[in-house]
Amino acid sequence: MAFMISQRAFIKLYLITMVEQHRGYGYEMLEAMKDEFKGFGYVPPQSEVYRALHELVQEGVFYRTKRLKGSDPRVDFQEIVLYHFTDGGEEKASLYKKQVKVDLDRCLGMLNKAERDNF
Amino acid sequence: MAFMISQRAFIKLYLITMVEQHRGYGYEMLEAMKDEFKGFGYVPPQSEVYRALHELVQEGVFYRTKRLKGSDPRVDFQEIVLYHFTDGGEEKASLYKKQVKVDLDRCLGMLNKAERDNF
Repeated sequence: MAFMISQRAFIKLYLITMVEQHRGYGYEMLEAMKDEFKGFGYVPPQSEVYRALHELVQEGVFYRTKRLKGSDPRVDFQEIVLYHFTDGGEEKASLYKKQVKVDLDRCLGMLNKAERDNF
Repeated sequence: MAFMISQRAFIKLYLITMVEQHRGYGYEMLEAMKDEFKGFGYVPPQSEVYRALHELVQEGVFYRTKRLKGSDPRVDFQEIVLYHFTDGGEEKASLYKKQVKVDLDRCLGMLNKAERDNF
């Protein structure tokens, strides 16, 4: 087993939760994650977030829709990518979250033990 | 900053603590760490432990002595490698532990946050 939880799994966990909360805008999910971890000196790399989204689409958890940002296509031509659960995607996501929870608990256990053992 | 604490730092932390506790036998430190983390499904790789020991020697924190395992050199020729703090090594080690503690706290904060945010 790996030493610590992978960054990819950590990011996928947050992406799934944001889609559950109907906050599935591609770019905004990246910005939200950056914002959440600012206080920890950790910046989720854009490339990692996009690879995680790509994997979740490949695994049949999410599908993508695109729409124009504004209401007037003559002037508002910026595309917004939105992520949704596929049919069955919510169940897959829920199972994945359970697995990640087990690994999070394991990592918390190891780090708490290291604090007790060494300080 | 890296996503999570590095395996190398985690192992160095334990090695320093074991030398503080006068448990600085090379091979036994490896076995002790394996034993400590058995319940977490994590096996500290032997190569990582030896690289960590090598770094601590290079950094002037530890020095090595060797002795024969038994009392009769005619029959007991297995070498035991023992690690000790150099002059000033204890201060370097204590500073290093403080830095690792900051990173451990940061990682615990991130993982606890992930549990709160997603479950």
